[in-house]
Amino acid sequence: MPTPPALDRLVADLPADVVVTDPDRMGGYRFDRSQDPDAGVPLAVVRAESTQHVQTAVRWAAEHRVPIITRGAGTGLSGGSSALDGCLVVSTERMRRIEVDPATRTCTVQPGLLNSEVKAAAAAEGLWYPPDPSSFEICSIGGNVATNAGGLCCVKYGVTMDYVLGMTVVLVDGTAVTLGGPRVKDVAGLSLTKLFVGSEGTLGIVTEIVLRLLPQPRPATTLVATFPTVVGATASVVEITRTMRPSMLELMDGATINAVEDMTRMGLDRDAGALLVVQSDEPSSHAREELEAVAAVCERHGATEIMHTDDPDEGEAFVAARRLAIPAVERKGSLLLEDVGVPVPQLGALVEGVAGIAEDNGVLIAVVAHAGDGNTHPLLVFDPADADQTARARTAYGQVMELAISLGGTITGEHGVGRLKKPWLASQLGPEAMELNHRIKAALDPHGLLNPGTVFESRGTPG
Amino acid sequence: MPTPPALDRLVADLPADVVVTDPDRMGGYRFDRSQDPDAGVPLAVVRAESTQHVQTAVRWAAEHRVPIITRGAGTGLSGGSSALDGCLVVSTERMRRIEVDPATRTCTVQPGLLNSEVKAAAAAEGLWYPPDPSSFEICSIGGNVATNAGGLCCVKYGVTMDYVLGMTVVLVDGTAVTLGGPRVKDVAGLSLTKLFVGSEGTLGIVTEIVLRLLPQPRPATTLVATFPTVVGATASVVEITRTMRPSMLELMDGATINAVEDMTRMGLDRDAGALLVVQSDEPSSHAREELEAVAAVCERHGATEIMHTDDPDEGEAFVAARRLAIPAVERKGSLLLEDVGVPVPQLGALVEGVAGIAEDNGVLIAVVAHAGDGNTHPLLVFDPADADQTARARTAYGQVMELAISLGGTITGEHGVGRLKKPWLASQLGPEAMELNHRIKAALDPHGLLNPGTVFESRGTPG
Repeated sequence: MPTPPALDRLVADLPADVVVTDPDRMGGYRFDRSQDPDAGVPLAVVRAESTQHVQTAVRWAAEHRVPIITRGAGTGLSGGSSALDGCLVVSTERMRRIEVDPATRTCTVQPGLLNSEVKAAAAAEGLWYPPDPSSFEICSIGGNVATNAGGLCCVKYGVTMDYVLGMTVVLVDGTAVTLGGPRVKDVAGLSLTKLFVGSEGTLGIVTEIVLRLLPQPRPATTLVATFPTVVGATASVVEITRTMRPSMLELMDGATINAVEDMTRMGLDRDAGALLVVQSDEPSSHAREELEAVAAVCERHGATEIMHTDDPDEGEAFVAARRLAIPAVERKGSLLLEDVGVPVPQLGALVEGVAGIAEDNGVLIAVVAHAGDGNTHPLLVFDPADADQTARARTAYGQVMELAISLGGTITGEHGVGRLKKPWLASQLGPEAMELNHRIKAALDPHGLLNPGTVFESRGTPG
Repeated sequence: MPTPPALDRLVADLPADVVVTDPDRMGGYRFDRSQDPDAGVPLAVVRAESTQHVQTAVRWAAEHRVPIITRGAGTGLSGGSSALDGCLVVSTERMRRIEVDPATRTCTVQPGLLNSEVKAAAAAEGLWYPPDPSSFEICSIGGNVATNAGGLCCVKYGVTMDYVLGMTVVLVDGTAVTLGGPRVKDVAGLSLTKLFVGSEGTLGIVTEIVLRLLPQPRPATTLVATFPTVVGATASVVEITRTMRPSMLELMDGATINAVEDMTRMGLDRDAGALLVVQSDEPSSHAREELEAVAAVCERHGATEIMHTDDPDEGEAFVAARRLAIPAVERKGSLLLEDVGVPVPQLGALVEGVAGIAEDNGVLIAVVAHAGDGNTHPLLVFDPADADQTARARTAYGQVMELAISLGGTITGEHGVGRLKKPWLASQLGPEAMELNHRIKAALDPHGLLNPGTVFESRGTPG
């Protein structure tokens, strides 16, 4: 723990108001959206405005062996940016520059910009940044890179990683390294750019990102299919993905539908067991053809109602409903939020297994899914005032991850391991891959200063 | 250098005929297609049939501190699998199993299978493996992973990296690590799968790969545009890529056109300065629309002849001509093969600069390019019997890479650094990124046993 004079030096080395040490003002930097009750109290918060500020902060922290927690918009769902007692929080909220280059179809962006702001800046030039976490209006692009965030478009357009062409990253010794650039193909040296994507602040602090952009997609045509049970919906998804590439393929189960309907009163079928929202952005006649094929599959698997619309606003209403799933279910109680994924053919087994876990533990689990990717979000609802229910929810939380692993799946498809899923990582990866993770971590952060306790326990110690 | 009894133990530990020590039979394992004259003579060649064989070979080599060169089909163009004196060559040519799973739209493949065989196995299930190096009929999928190979489809469909979902990799201590799997989204732990893609045998030996597959694309519509000079062609490419996503956008300059015409007598315009081959795989009416827009751009930039065809065979004839560029130019003399890439707006400056370098040094440089990605292959032709010309070609070879770097580009877009481009890597990456490469290398291969001298000089020493 540094002495106060040391902290004075940090304050002196950075412009006024960059360093926050007032406990009240630091309160907003302790938690991410997972609201981890174990979040600590930072020593100071650096609201960096540049790569240089980050370098100054990191050098100071390294000198004094102070753990560094990097933080974007604080919308993480796995506790990956919860503060630790005595840590230095590096917030990127003030790093908000963006430059869109239509000639290379890329943008260069600082990490503090929101995903929606990146999308908007690209759209102003007729371009498109595809990755679209449901939280795209409140999550930062730096956080997206840190977790390799996904979203609804991934089923056709891939994840954040697929769009990161380059970056500047500050290492724990304060060196700023530039990797890659606005080049679609570049194999000079090891693939280090991709290594930092999804590293959750454990290897370095990303201060600038070069993103690939696409031309704007065509307006999507939407199909909404209602099923009496979730079984028919998951079976439809498995069949659709074998031969088709819809631009969206999302699932809500009955509990989610009801929670969203409680919030929106948009007229969703409260008796439905599941709902699929499917989009195609092919040229219109082909989109109709593709969605007719989707409809035929859904009918074969027992869909009771199928609605088509070419109207982008009408379609967007269903997509917006899907995006509301987490906040809607959150109204029912506190959430433990899963992000488990499986190979698509196991989707039915996963969803049915989750229902069994809910029943066994007597807890409500609503399921919403990026179904076309096999990536589901079982949302465990509990009352934190009810200790017994809380304990049962925690038991179920682990069981869902164990189920996903047993089905050849992953404990996290797009939210990151953070602190909350760390206990299950080794049983997914196995000892050899865990050892390899530790080796890379030790090579880049020998003293374990970067986001300690996130993803895995570092073998290095700050002390 | 191990003593002969040590080599006996390797032979004894592996099945009959897996280990080759006969100098004549080893001759075929010394060179890759770059024909590096400095290639050495191996101590032995292990023609592994399984991950276990690779583990046995690697453990033996590690124990005796023998350098390990991994080798696929030997079609590398950068000297990345040239033998070293006294090395152990691990050949994957016998590892040829593939399993296509239409339900997950993935295949699990051993590294020795050819790219074309992967494509064929996928096609038999109505699926498609997109990456398509020009050498796809003779290059191995393991080599594609080792170099993060590209091809003609990358402009729309991405590179090898984008299709690798998982792998088994043998580390230098003989451990076999399984990373990723048939899951499109998976962020559990560091992004290690991607780290091994493009690592050119310097971090481990990939023995199994899980590849993502797509549904078969629609048949492509083709446009061929002829330009009096290369300037109009590159200007067209820059304009096309700003707003459109053709499924192919390839360029041949006049020297390449003539070399291909010499070989094929297909009736290409020998007076042309450049030719663009452009494809669209949109639904047919939209493909026509897209290619009409392309034609308008080409006309604006001085194209003298523009040919459209919906006939896939006729289109494929031009694509095949494009793929023949390297063997066709190779008939003119020995080649030094570049793979430089730049941000697309710099394409004209790169191609014109290369012409200047050719003139300054009095050597022929034919240019063929994956133009839509800014990735060009200047082919330097020289007579190895002419020492002066050879020296001038070598000078020009370096100048082309320096030019690409000065334009914000890369010394290699898809072939890898290998041994031949190593001297230029540091000036592209800069000291910080080089240091980071070394750190990762040292963490995974502390004694520098894995493909020493490729990509960078290892700091570890085998001895």
